[in-house]
Formats: sequence, C-alpha cells, structure tokens
Amino acid sequence: MIRPPISRAEAMLLDQNDPLAAKQALFDLPDGVAHLVGHSLGPPPKGALDRLDAAQRDWARGLVRSWNSAGWIDLAERTGDRIAALIGAGPGEVIVADSVSVNLFKLAAAALPLARKYVLFVEEDEFPTDQYIVAGLGAISGADVRVLPPGGTAAALSAGGVFIHSVVNFRSGEVADIAAHEREANKHGALILWDLSHATGVLDLKLGAEGARLATGCTYKYLNGGPGAPSFVYAARELASKLATPLPGWMGHAAPFAFDGTYAPREGVARFASGTPPILSLEALSGALEAIEGLPLIQLQDKARALGALAIARAQGMGLEILSPADDSVRGGHVSVRIPEGYPVVQALAARGVMADFRVPDTVRFGFSPLFLSYETVWDAMDALANILSSRSWDQPQFHARARVT
Amino acid sequence: MIRPPISRAEAMLLDQNDPLAAKQALFDLPDGVAHLVGHSLGPPPKGALDRLDAAQRDWARGLVRSWNSAGWIDLAERTGDRIAALIGAGPGEVIVADSVSVNLFKLAAAALPLARKYVLFVEEDEFPTDQYIVAGLGAISGADVRVLPPGGTAAALSAGGVFIHSVVNFRSGEVADIAAHEREANKHGALILWDLSHATGVLDLKLGAEGARLATGCTYKYLNGGPGAPSFVYAARELASKLATPLPGWMGHAAPFAFDGTYAPREGVARFASGTPPILSLEALSGALEAIEGLPLIQLQDKARALGALAIARAQGMGLEILSPADDSVRGGHVSVRIPEGYPVVQALAARGVMADFRVPDTVRFGFSPLFLSYETVWDAMDALANILSSRSWDQPQFHARARVT
Repeated sequence: MIRPPISRAEAMLLDQNDPLAAKQALFDLPDGVAHLVGHSLGPPPKGALDRLDAAQRDWARGLVRSWNSAGWIDLAERTGDRIAALIGAGPGEVIVADSVSVNLFKLAAAALPLARKYVLFVEEDEFPTDQYIVAGLGAISGADVRVLPPGGTAAALSAGGVFIHSVVNFRSGEVADIAAHEREANKHGALILWDLSHATGVLDLKLGAEGARLATGCTYKYLNGGPGAPSFVYAARELASKLATPLPGWMGHAAPFAFDGTYAPREGVARFASGTPPILSLEALSGALEAIEGLPLIQLQDKARALGALAIARAQGMGLEILSPADDSVRGGHVSVRIPEGYPVVQALAARGVMADFRVPDTVRFGFSPLFLSYETVWDAMDALANILSSRSWDQPQFHARARVT
Repeated sequence: MIRPPISRAEAMLLDQNDPLAAKQALFDLPDGVAHLVGHSLGPPPKGALDRLDAAQRDWARGLVRSWNSAGWIDLAERTGDRIAALIGAGPGEVIVADSVSVNLFKLAAAALPLARKYVLFVEEDEFPTDQYIVAGLGAISGADVRVLPPGGTAAALSAGGVFIHSVVNFRSGEVADIAAHEREANKHGALILWDLSHATGVLDLKLGAEGARLATGCTYKYLNGGPGAPSFVYAARELASKLATPLPGWMGHAAPFAFDGTYAPREGVARFASGTPPILSLEALSGALEAIEGLPLIQLQDKARALGALAIARAQGMGLEILSPADDSVRGGHVSVRIPEGYPVVQALAARGVMADFRVPDTVRFGFSPLFLSYETVWDAMDALANILSSRSWDQPQFHARARVT
C-alpha cells in the first residue's frame, strides 16, 4: 500500500523527487487550474497544438499531395504503432480508427464467429456505450445478448462467447485482471474484447504478455489527444488475420487505390481501418503522444495511484464514502467519492479552479493524470474540497445551474 | 447546352461576370496552382483555418468546459443543420458523424427492416467502399447481397430491397435522377440510400423536394472541410424516428449524461450520432462551410458545369475520349477523360501547377469546384494539358515514379 503524504510539506517533498515533474512543462494549461478531469478530457500537450499548426500548413500548402508528402496516408498506422508501445502491444498490432463505439462494434462482430458460442456478454455496470453497442450488434447479427450483474465475469467467460469488458471501470476505477480473465477465457473458448478507455496512458498495460487478444480504447483522456480524438483498435498478431470486419472500408483494403469492387483485407489489424480518418484530429493526437512516449509505464501508474491515495486519504478525513478500491494495486487513474450534493460541489470546486466531474446520481470523480499534476496541486484541491464541504459554500444558487455537460 | 468559351479572352470575360468570382479570396491557395482536384480534397477556406485556431484556444483555455462553453456538445447537430441547407433538407434532418463508410453501414442496416425485401443492392461500378460495406453488412446481417451490372437501377428498385447508389458516379461524373428513382422505389417498397460524396457542394440538390429519404456524403471534397473531415447522415423527418441504428453510441442517446444502461434513441436523425465526434476536424468543417453558405446552389452547379463544358470542349479538341456525359444537365462537378498515359500526364501537369488526379487504369479526372476556380485558370490548365500531350513531355522518368496516393 502507498503511504500518502500527511502534510502539504510532505506533498511538496514528493514533487521534488517526482521523475515526471518536468513533464508538466509540455502542457498548455491555464494558471491556477487543478485539472483533475484528465479521465474525461486531457489538456493540450504543446506538441499537439504545434502539430495541428503544421497540419494546417500541410493542408494549405501541400493540398491533396499531403496524403503522400505529409504522410497522412499511413498516419493511422504509424500512430497506432506508437500507441502499441503504450499498451504493451507490438508494432502492427494497433491502428487508429473511428470512435470507441464503432470499434467495439467492429471487434465484437469480428470476434463472434471465432468464439465457441455466438453470444455477447456485458455487465450491467459497464460503460453505457458498450452496452448499447452490444445490443445494437445483437439485433443486427442475431447473436444472443446476455447482460450480467456486476461481477458476472466468471459466468460470461465459462459460457464461451464474446465478453466486452472495461479494464478500468468508469465509475469505481477498479482494474480488471487481464491475465487471469484471459486464462479463463481460453479454457472455455471465450474471447474478451477489452475497453481500455479509462486505462490507456495511466496503467502499466501489458496486453501482449497478459494474453489480451482484442481491445479498443480512447485517446482523449490520459493520452491527451484532443476532444473526440480518434480511437484505436488492438488485435493480437496471431488473431488479427482471422478477423473479418463488418465495416470493410476502402482504407482497410489491401490495395485502396486499385478501386477494386471486391474487398480484400489488409494484413493484420490494418483491416480495421474503415473510411478516411479525420486527419486534423489524428494529427493532434500524433503530436500529443510526444508528451508520454518513452516513459516507463510503471512510473505513470505509480504516480497516478499515489495521487489517488492522497485524495482518498484526504476524502476519508472529510468523512466521505470512497467508491473506488482502497487497494492501490487494483485502482486505475481516477477516484470516485459519494457526495449527495455532488453537482453543486463540483461547480463550487470549479469556481476555485479545481476541475472534477460529477456522474449521476451522487458520484464525484477526480482524475489523476500523472504527466501534469503535482502532489501539491492535489493536496490543495483537497483543501478546497474540505473547505467547500465544511462551509457548505456549495449551497449557492449559481452552483445549482445545470449545464448540458458536467 | 452550355456554349463554352472559345478563346482565353472569352474565358476572362466570363470571369468578369462571374457572381462567384469574389469567393476565391475566401480560400488559402498557393499562387500559381490550378486546383482541379476539389472532387478529391478541397483546399482550406480561411474560415476553416481560423476556426481551427479558435478550437485550439477553446481546448487550451476552456478545457473540458468547452463542451458547453464552445458548443462542442451540439456542434455535430448544428453543423448538420447547416449542411441540410446545402442539400435541400430541413433543419433536424442531418447530423455530422463518422465516415461515409460507417454511415453507409448504419443507414443501410437501419433501412433493411423497413424495405419490402431484406436484400441489399449495389451496382458493380459503384464506389468501392459502398460495395465493400454492402458485403460486410450482408455478412453480419444475413441479408442477401446482389451486385448488379452498371445501369441495374431499375432491377434493383423493382425488387423492393435497399439500394445503395451514388448521386454522382465517382468515375464518369454522371448524375442520377433522384426524383425518378424515388418514385420507382416507392412503387416497389424499395429504399434508396444515396451516396452524395461527389455531389454535395456542387449540385443543386433538393433531397426533400425530390423525395430522397436516406443519404450520406463526404465533406472534404466540394465542402472543403479538411482531410478526412467527418461525414454526415441525412434521414427524412418522417422516416428518421422509425430507424434503428446498429451502432447506438452514447452521443445518439436521448439522455447521454444519465449513463443509463438501456439505449433510448434521440428523436430523429440525431440517433445516428454514435461515439464522440472528432471535434477538431469537425470545427474545421464548421468554419469551412462559411465559404459556401448563403449562395444559390444553382449558381454553384451552373458554374461547375460551365467549367466542365470548357474542359470537355478543349479535351475534345485534343482528340481525347471523354468519359463523362456531354449533356451538361446530367454531369456533376468533375470530368473524366481517357488518357492511356494518364499517370505520367498527371505528374507532368502537377509540375506545371495543374492538379488533377488519375484513377486506374487510364482515367484522368478534373474537378471543377465553383468557389475558387476561374474560367481563365481552367483555360490555362487545358493549355498545359494540350502542350504536355503534343510535346509528349510526360514521357520523362520523373513523371513515372509512383507515389502511394495519386
């Protein structure tokens, strides 16, 4: 277990010894903001903004030639290879494409014929999009859909179908044991499609070593790729070429510029490219990755968990119920606490420069991106929370006004 | 029939009287480039680049709050409404989402249960992605797939299934008669899914008036939305709420922030939103539309066809076979000519600043974006082509070197 700092001075001492401390300078963050929502949308790495400027010039000066001269044509593959290194996958096992929703559909559909049973499994506390996509795929494919109570993993795997599961639960932050689940899946002819949305960039993921075969995930959270940055698809090398995508687009064709009427998939995971990718958003993602590349993933994980442990200890001191695992080793990058007045509390925090998010009905989530947060920032943010709660300063009309997104 | 100018002076006279001439100043185009590839990728409107700069600031300063404060949360809908006005659709009938490939899949899958027969039809000279998607959807849904010879429309419609068809053929530029096809489809319980990729922004489209019910299209060609700019979905109001998308993502949910495990579609076409859209690419598209909005669509169509007629007359003068309709009223924004040495000819044209494209085996396509091209530019480009052909200057080694994309 991590022993969190028990004073502001101790927090600052940890900052002095933080091997990631210098990374904060790579981000364009407003002064005075404690950005504890990196689990929702990361702030811009300067590399992302620079790359976006360059992409505008490529478009304006290179025009359509930039598909070659600026490397747009294989940017999804090259960026995929870079993401592979961040999730414990190999070159050629990841491609950037579409959204998580679309990729869940593509991968689950491709997995169905290869699993022992033509059945889709998902738990009822899974991220809603995952549940919707499973339902949509069930309806079009004829596959049975089984929605299981939380903790239904064992039942799902023993039944031998396709199980869609998040590595980090979006509410609790609890981390699933990839290796153990894959061993069980293998026993029963099941295939697991991992949703890495809240895991990528903050966990020491080892997809290959732990036997994960299929995954997708989000790049706008801890990878800081920009709002709605494109998602990625991972398929283990030995499996990829057996997979038929239900969405064969021209970018996933073995010879896209032959304009042949018959589809011939590219080798490996590249077949999961579908239509033309949104290059400007993809370029921003490409630039964003510079901030995280080359670091030991364990360092990112350790720091995120240490910041989370600090927040948990402080929140417990305020008498708050913690909805995330106390055991650091099974907790992802965010911590959820129960606050019945969560909505106005989050607004009151925002008024003090502390950004967190609220999830109905009563959950406040704090995200601990290890690249740009300091222990001091988290300490002070928790001071702000303590003050807001003890003074009940959240109970003002302006903090109750509802925006469309929280 | 349009009488094309027969001299450079006459071309320049047309420019003087061109009501769209002032629009060229809205684009950031390099000097000395004749950009005849707007049917592939449009050049950047200054509004797109400005909007992208603003979006970078929104991300850096507003952070996750920009979902509300910068209007990201409903940008796909608002941009959809603006595109609706450019295709003869009404507010609430269009939403921006995903790629053309993904949208073809979503719409065709949603149409299948509503057509008289659970069968997919496509012609064998249809754009390849459309054919691949039809095959992919057939495989996952169990729907029969019938690939018809070119001109198989009547057979497709009388069979009463779902027919995927381009309004403008990507090779020939021939325009389909939407109203006539829809009348026929209605007689037989067929549904047509129109691919507007080579039509939007260059034709006087009247989807609503002509009875079109389902469509998708591309925004990076004549709408100049940027490389890989997101696509759009059109569903006629009376049909939209009967359609079930196979890809129900959280952005298409009636209450996305309720995080309910059960999918409840939004009203109308907005249900075809799936995952989080790529906001940076979407913002560029949003800014790009300023260049085309508010113009009579007939003016865009007339000028594109007049430029095309000029190119056809000149190409005929060079003895080239024209692969596009001579009848202006059934021709879209691009003109294809057969040139056996098309690849090196296109490279030789590029060396003179004339951008066209080559499609295997022997087709050279010239696109006539009406917003930024002048008659003079097209006249001079055809001079360059005539010179390259008569001098055989294309027959040099550097023009034969193959790039990955042409």
